[in-house]
Amino acid sequence: MSDVSERVSERPGSSVLARVLAFDAAGSRSRSDRLATEEPLEIRLLAGRSRRTAAVTMRTPGADFELAAGFLHGEGIVARPEDIVGMSYCTEPGIDSEQRFNIVNVALAPHVAPDLAPLERHFLTTSACGVCGKASLDALRVRSAPLAGTSPRIDPGTLSGLPGRLRAAQGLFEVTGGLHAAGLFDAGGNLVAVREDVGRHNAVDKLLGWALMAGRLPLAESIVLVSGRASYEILQKCLAAAVPVVCSVSAPSSLAVSLAEQFGITLVGFLRGERFNVYAGAERIAAPTLRPPPARSSGG
Amino acid sequence: MSDVSERVSERPGSSVLARVLAFDAAGSRSRSDRLATEEPLEIRLLAGRSRRTAAVTMRTPGADFELAAGFLHGEGIVARPEDIVGMSYCTEPGIDSEQRFNIVNVALAPHVAPDLAPLERHFLTTSACGVCGKASLDALRVRSAPLAGTSPRIDPGTLSGLPGRLRAAQGLFEVTGGLHAAGLFDAGGNLVAVREDVGRHNAVDKLLGWALMAGRLPLAESIVLVSGRASYEILQKCLAAAVPVVCSVSAPSSLAVSLAEQFGITLVGFLRGERFNVYAGAERIAAPTLRPPPARSSGG
Repeated sequence: MSDVSERVSERPGSSVLARVLAFDAAGSRSRSDRLATEEPLEIRLLAGRSRRTAAVTMRTPGADFELAAGFLHGEGIVARPEDIVGMSYCTEPGIDSEQRFNIVNVALAPHVAPDLAPLERHFLTTSACGVCGKASLDALRVRSAPLAGTSPRIDPGTLSGLPGRLRAAQGLFEVTGGLHAAGLFDAGGNLVAVREDVGRHNAVDKLLGWALMAGRLPLAESIVLVSGRASYEILQKCLAAAVPVVCSVSAPSSLAVSLAEQFGITLVGFLRGERFNVYAGAERIAAPTLRPPPARSSGG
Repeated sequence: MSDVSERVSERPGSSVLARVLAFDAAGSRSRSDRLATEEPLEIRLLAGRSRRTAAVTMRTPGADFELAAGFLHGEGIVARPEDIVGMSYCTEPGIDSEQRFNIVNVALAPHVAPDLAPLERHFLTTSACGVCGKASLDALRVRSAPLAGTSPRIDPGTLSGLPGRLRAAQGLFEVTGGLHAAGLFDAGGNLVAVREDVGRHNAVDKLLGWALMAGRLPLAESIVLVSGRASYEILQKCLAAAVPVVCSVSAPSSLAVSLAEQFGITLVGFLRGERFNVYAGAERIAAPTLRPPPARSSGG
């Protein structure tokens, strides 16, 4: 076995080559394989003369500025592109190049007085008595209004086509054989953007950070599809970007469904071929045919 | 759609019932579905008169004490069962019952002077210049020695049987249709314990926390299998418990492979039926048959 870390170039790429021993019923053989890169990223806030770490996350390098912007937007630290006046990799002298590309400095505009309280949930320096799903939703209500209206209307056939388009656009999944993705689609099911990462929440941050910096928020007529499960965190980020329809290829959690119900988001799960489940906001799904229950000879 | 959060009972269960609209090619119909519960858990350390929050994680209720113990062990805060003298849900008067079961107080023994530096990575109150994969591995080296030896020897056929046994033991996956799991097996492939959670790292914490409190650490002759991908965090937790063989059903990340190589862990990925890849520590896999490369008429 060779040492993967030796092969990481100065600026880490999104995948690296490795030697693997591949087994099957006939035996084993050595071959090369591509691994998705996982490296820590520190996101630092520069506000006037103050500086603080906003987060450290394990991520796949690439789209780091989008990841930083998306994370800060999801946490309510920034709301508009002009809230960020600059993003750069660490420029401190003496720091080695590998670390430099794992630190993003985000300079906030003077008008931004960041409310860092939401970050405290991550920082965990406070220990106020009280955590529960309801409290989390209540805290979210302070900074996010429920989505109004039942627009856009989505055809069930449109949803069925999304996973195939997301997978086809996943360049890194193709070479590494497994990576999380988040895709942005218009109401007609056309792919607008896709981002990948070893972490599902990072893929969503990269996608929504791109949309933020491109001036595309709020994403009022859009669909977001995530690989894997739909958790509270995924829904929280989509709510901040006003995404009305959130889909996942696997199961949602109880708190994801509660958030979707209370904030007017359409939540689709187990999106696989022509089958899917709608857990909240079914009014955005066009013309569902309600089938009668199977006939029964006796009640029950 | 009904309100899921209304149905959460006083002490949150590991799954809740929800109404879903199930679509397929023929149309849609309403039916009931079980969702994995997702609720925050705050882990608090009580050391002498001091008290601080060690972590807040979104988790599936159940095995909360094991989760707390496993998390603290993985972070190097506790090393032995006797380092923990008590665990309890929050007992403060006036706190409502839903929150009470989302807070675990962990009382440390007087002899434990916890090194909270590793937690700072989560707390993020410091902003020392320097994050990268190598730095993460270097920091790990301070508290974890590499695993010595090539024991246990694992038969390839043993590995092939593990995913089926894990799935068969997953009670919550069965009812919710999708949940992460971590399974502990002996070297012969017999299932010892399984834990489930909406978060893969929580499932591992629950599993290893159970092993810690049961006095079973180090897990020198064991195999751990996780659903999904193998990341740095998963390997870090397994290293702390001295697990020599770590398997996942999907891809490992670059940093997971580096950690496995540098700390002597056998890392198996894409474990599906009779096929799997060995990314590090192949010497523990018994008698691999090395096939000659396919014959070719010309070099290249």
